[in-house]
Amino acid sequence: MSETNKIRVAIFGGSGYGGSELLRILLFHPNAEVRLVTANEHAGKAVGEVHKNLFGMTDLRFEKAPEELLTLTNIDVAFFALPHGQALDVVPQLLPNIKVIDLSGDFRIDDADVFKQFYKLEHTATDLQTKFVYGLTETNREAVKSAQYIANPGCFATATLLALAPIVKSGMLTGKVIVDAKTGSSGSGAKPASNTHHPQRMNSFYAYKPFTHQHVPEIEQHLKEVGSFQSDLVFMTHSLPVARGIFASCYLETNVQLSNEDLRNLYAHFYKDAFFVRMVEGSPDINWVKTTNFCDIAVHTSGKQVVVFSAIDNLVKGAAGQAVQNMNLMFGIGETTGLRMVGTNP
Amino acid sequence: MSETNKIRVAIFGGSGYGGSELLRILLFHPNAEVRLVTANEHAGKAVGEVHKNLFGMTDLRFEKAPEELLTLTNIDVAFFALPHGQALDVVPQLLPNIKVIDLSGDFRIDDADVFKQFYKLEHTATDLQTKFVYGLTETNREAVKSAQYIANPGCFATATLLALAPIVKSGMLTGKVIVDAKTGSSGSGAKPASNTHHPQRMNSFYAYKPFTHQHVPEIEQHLKEVGSFQSDLVFMTHSLPVARGIFASCYLETNVQLSNEDLRNLYAHFYKDAFFVRMVEGSPDINWVKTTNFCDIAVHTSGKQVVVFSAIDNLVKGAAGQAVQNMNLMFGIGETTGLRMVGTNP
Amino acid sequence: MSETNKIRVAIFGGSGYGGSELLRILLFHPNAEVRLVTANEHAGKAVGEVHKNLFGMTDLRFEKAPEELLTLTNIDVAFFALPHGQALDVVPQLLPNIKVIDLSGDFRIDDADVFKQFYKLEHTATDLQTKFVYGLTETNREAVKSAQYIANPGCFATATLLALAPIVKSGMLTGKVIVDAKTGSSGSGAKPASNTHHPQRMNSFYAYKPFTHQHVPEIEQHLKEVGSFQSDLVFMTHSLPVARGIFASCYLETNVQLSNEDLRNLYAHFYKDAFFVRMVEGSPDINWVKTTNFCDIAVHTSGKQVVVFSAIDNLVKGAAGQAVQNMNLMFGIGETTGLRMVGTNP
Amino acid sequence: MSETNKIRVAIFGGSGYGGSELLRILLFHPNAEVRLVTANEHAGKAVGEVHKNLFGMTDLRFEKAPEELLTLTNIDVAFFALPHGQALDVVPQLLPNIKVIDLSGDFRIDDADVFKQFYKLEHTATDLQTKFVYGLTETNREAVKSAQYIANPGCFATATLLALAPIVKSGMLTGKVIVDAKTGSSGSGAKPASNTHHPQRMNSFYAYKPFTHQHVPEIEQHLKEVGSFQSDLVFMTHSLPVARGIFASCYLETNVQLSNEDLRNLYAHFYKDAFFVRMVEGSPDINWVKTTNFCDIAVHTSGKQVVVFSAIDNLVKGAAGQAVQNMNLMFGIGETTGLRMVGTNP
Repeated sequence: MSETNKIRVAIFGGSGYGGSELLRILLFHPNAEVRLVTANEHAGKAVGEVHKNLFGMTDLRFEKAPEELLTLTNIDVAFFALPHGQALDVVPQLLPNIKVIDLSGDFRIDDADVFKQFYKLEHTATDLQTKFVYGLTETNREAVKSAQYIANPGCFATATLLALAPIVKSGMLTGKVIVDAKTGSSGSGAKPASNTHHPQRMNSFYAYKPFTHQHVPEIEQHLKEVGSFQSDLVFMTHSLPVARGIFASCYLETNVQLSNEDLRNLYAHFYKDAFFVRMVEGSPDINWVKTTNFCDIAVHTSGKQVVVFSAIDNLVKGAAGQAVQNMNLMFGIGETTGLRMVGTNP
Repeated sequence: MSETNKIRVAIFGGSGYGGSELLRILLFHPNAEVRLVTANEHAGKAVGEVHKNLFGMTDLRFEKAPEELLTLTNIDVAFFALPHGQALDVVPQLLPNIKVIDLSGDFRIDDADVFKQFYKLEHTATDLQTKFVYGLTETNREAVKSAQYIANPGCFATATLLALAPIVKSGMLTGKVIVDAKTGSSGSGAKPASNTHHPQRMNSFYAYKPFTHQHVPEIEQHLKEVGSFQSDLVFMTHSLPVARGIFASCYLETNVQLSNEDLRNLYAHFYKDAFFVRMVEGSPDINWVKTTNFCDIAVHTSGKQVVVFSAIDNLVKGAAGQAVQNMNLMFGIGETTGLRMVGTNP
Repeated sequence: MSETNKIRVAIFGGSGYGGSELLRILLFHPNAEVRLVTANEHAGKAVGEVHKNLFGMTDLRFEKAPEELLTLTNIDVAFFALPHGQALDVVPQLLPNIKVIDLSGDFRIDDADVFKQFYKLEHTATDLQTKFVYGLTETNREAVKSAQYIANPGCFATATLLALAPIVKSGMLTGKVIVDAKTGSSGSGAKPASNTHHPQRMNSFYAYKPFTHQHVPEIEQHLKEVGSFQSDLVFMTHSLPVARGIFASCYLETNVQLSNEDLRNLYAHFYKDAFFVRMVEGSPDINWVKTTNFCDIAVHTSGKQVVVFSAIDNLVKGAAGQAVQNMNLMFGIGETTGLRMVGTNP
Repeated sequence: MSETNKIRVAIFGGSGYGGSELLRILLFHPNAEVRLVTANEHAGKAVGEVHKNLFGMTDLRFEKAPEELLTLTNIDVAFFALPHGQALDVVPQLLPNIKVIDLSGDFRIDDADVFKQFYKLEHTATDLQTKFVYGLTETNREAVKSAQYIANPGCFATATLLALAPIVKSGMLTGKVIVDAKTGSSGSGAKPASNTHHPQRMNSFYAYKPFTHQHVPEIEQHLKEVGSFQSDLVFMTHSLPVARGIFASCYLETNVQLSNEDLRNLYAHFYKDAFFVRMVEGSPDINWVKTTNFCDIAVHTSGKQVVVFSAIDNLVKGAAGQAVQNMNLMFGIGETTGLRMVGTNP
């Protein structure tokens, strides 16, 4: 660490929404110091000129990524918020003592064939792959603590896995699982596109990628680590006309009949040490988690039919917030440090 | 009919969104003439003062509902857009030659006990109930044509039933059905309430009434009329931050494996005479049906797993539009008359 | 006209929002027939595939613009909804008997130097320019009726001019005029861009082009035609987080003191024959004019200080609707034909 | 102060949006401790049950306001976030050593007749009135530091005054000033009402209270304290379809011609010690100040015509944030303590 005893941070890919949120958190993190933030197209510009929310709050400037990555010393941890595929190239070039937290999908899938099927990319760093720990903090806390490399979960995967992990762990799940997931427009990134064009998006709701979303394999893979998961998973993604937020409605069946209270207790127990998971009454609402690292969950039963609702901010618990939560654990500091962002009403 | 050969219309409950949409359609319907529109709290006011979209387009004024309903003559059809429970009292007092189209839930449920369970009301007109035809036009066209009384379907029920009817009819449905339905804020009515308070709603998405929505019994009842429906139905409602639109994602299983194309053909055939049902590629979007009487549907298969997406405008195909579609059939005029409202881009 | 006695229409530039709205109106216009709609990048595609609101309502397909424009016969009127500068090239090549309605800024400015200053383009058709009539229907009705070529007003210009024309005509205006104008995101066109990126736009309000908007010269030019206009005009444009609508707040001073009622009467008299201008109480609201051809206006005085509020749909009265209104007059049919689009509540 | 050396805080009126924001800030303020928060209708409920953004972050509960206010000891400062008129009754009953920061309009207007005219209330505490300091921190910093009682400025007044103070102070202002101000829906409070009903508000923009808004007198009064202000002020309020934010467009004239740069320098100099005022290029955007205590300002000139744009979050710099900023100064701690809330992109 630096002489100030702070974790020295590099951020690769600071101009997108993932990078924006990493900066919002890390620039004000009491134990971290951002030493480098890259954005090739903005190199030289002040961070506050690109992310205008940060104007007046930092003098940091964007830089080009160093050409010789081995020259990158004096860094304790590198965050990657690059488009899928780019971390595959860069991570292997870093000095081996630098910890890595990758927000892309590059290192989430253990099976290279499955990776290729969903990402349409050859996995070129299969050796490194085995060293990556899947960073769903609440279910993988101990592994994260000792990890050198973290594959930070996808936003949809985070909302879905936090909703399903307790019931999978319990062994009471039976039959297929259906997840109807909805995301805000920031999930499509900071680059304008037709599906995020305001005149249309503001009145839209639609489904996309039926049966084929790339988060399916990481959900299935991790559920098998959490418990004995043998269910079919039907996973469907939809687009919401809000900027931030993911809401997952998870439909499943239990092999015994549980009351609402039974199930709620099961979840509360599973998450008893998880500050960022809040069990709520009725339904979570993306309004109450926006800009925060919380995942709000509610459960309901009707006979053996169960629905679990979960809500997160796709850019925080679904990306940058969870990444920093993992960093905190990797460096032995309090899990919630720098992450107690308070939501707003309204 | 009137000397101008137009259908003479009365609208009970003209101040809410259902009434607003009935007026938007019927005031410009070539074969209809609105003779009476009631709104007790606005009696005497010009319609265009309350529904400012109609300012300058009509001289009609709201009236109090007549105390002696038998004095209401010279009316061919009465639409009811009143809160649940009120049509139960009023309809039995009308002259028997007046046709009735009720947009509330009062006459949708044949079983009085089920009605009471979901609406928390005693059904006080069980005799009349047997004369009501369920007005899902596309599945009940012949019955509607000869009906005297129409129970107009609920908005969620319309989106769900149009999505499920072809597969139920086909006999290929097996196992349980899960419907994840989402509605815009106008579904909560024209009266301000905390769940439609703009500062909160604009950033919200949440679920409500898990397992207990009052549209469940009419869906199950009508699916049993459409085909042999024995599946469990899990029906879940959510709130969207848009003004208009319902989107239903329906998850089901077939007893044989169908390709996307097979299933699409099955649906296209089922709806071959249905002008207002459009089979679309990928996904429907509430943006493309808003303010129109269309129901857009897309289907996808993966093995025996099926998802059917449907989108309607909750106030049009889900209420006033379908009501007028039924009126057209009841009076022997073209089904789409007055209803070819064109949506907008954006 | 065609043997069916309909106006034969060509639309150049049918893929943008202007073209989309022209199609929405003209395809259902009782006296018009769309013979050609061009969109080079969509040539061959069905109109309803690009503008999904029209899916199922037309079999029309986009075509490439003809290379030899003189071969374009059997057309009575050509609408241009192309980016600024393109009509300048195309209009001179058309057969001289074809009437033209140009929705761009190409033919709005009589002074070629002013045109160049605001549009950064050389005006290459100054001869034709003198034949163009400025198509603000309500103030130029007689000239429009006999026009061969129409320069359809800009959206901001329409809202501003309708708000100011009566007071300018009255001769009571004194001192400078300040117009604070706001537009919805569709004003930026159908092509995604950073200022219409949904995650940002949905929570934004900002000003742009201070003191330099290209609608300033057409406003000043036309006010001098309406009356004796010698005021300084401060014109400021802002961006609203809605899809549709322009709202102009116009601040001015009168040389005599007028009551609210006096001023309202003056406006009501000025617009007594204008179906599409509605004088409203309190304030107009873009919500009540959206998707319609109405311009709603309210006036208020305080001593000699006056504020005039006007609201239009930028794509209808501010573009395609007014264009068709002009077409109706040019062909001697009722001014409101095909344009009585009804707004909705909500 | 408390043994922990923290400022002991009471909040009267904790259930509205002003109270919500005071809690969001003060519960995490390093030098403050919330000892009491009142909300009669929610007495006994957990704060996190009413303001769900705070769920899991505090154990505080709402209480009824004490009937005998003299029994309220061990409090250093009382914030009032009550409806207009209520602080007038309560403040005089407090122990005189308790500092007061009132977010309502009760103590902003020195002239009791003007107060009555705009608030339709008799001012019943005119003695106390003279002890109140107007809490626009940036222009009144020294007076705030030594104040016992603070009248916290209105949201519109804050945006307007920060935009106008530098030019008024400079003595270069001449002629009338026109302020076209726009607010988000949270400005209407937490209680549902027809003007904040989501289905309508989401597509609305309209003006209200032309020439008569109650913030006019506090703006005029304070500008006369800032400099020699003799201009007529035309102040107009409008409603935006966003939850948070005020944007003011201020049109004025200078008695000498200034370049953009001159004027910007004048503003930058005026605000050189003001952390929360940021001079920006082009235009501020409410998107970049939402949830923060910043006021972003841009200036533009054209000859002697000037426009000043300012943007704030109406609930933060326009209410609770500025209130805490004032508290910090009154208690001699750093002005930005607890207030460096970072906005988000998007």
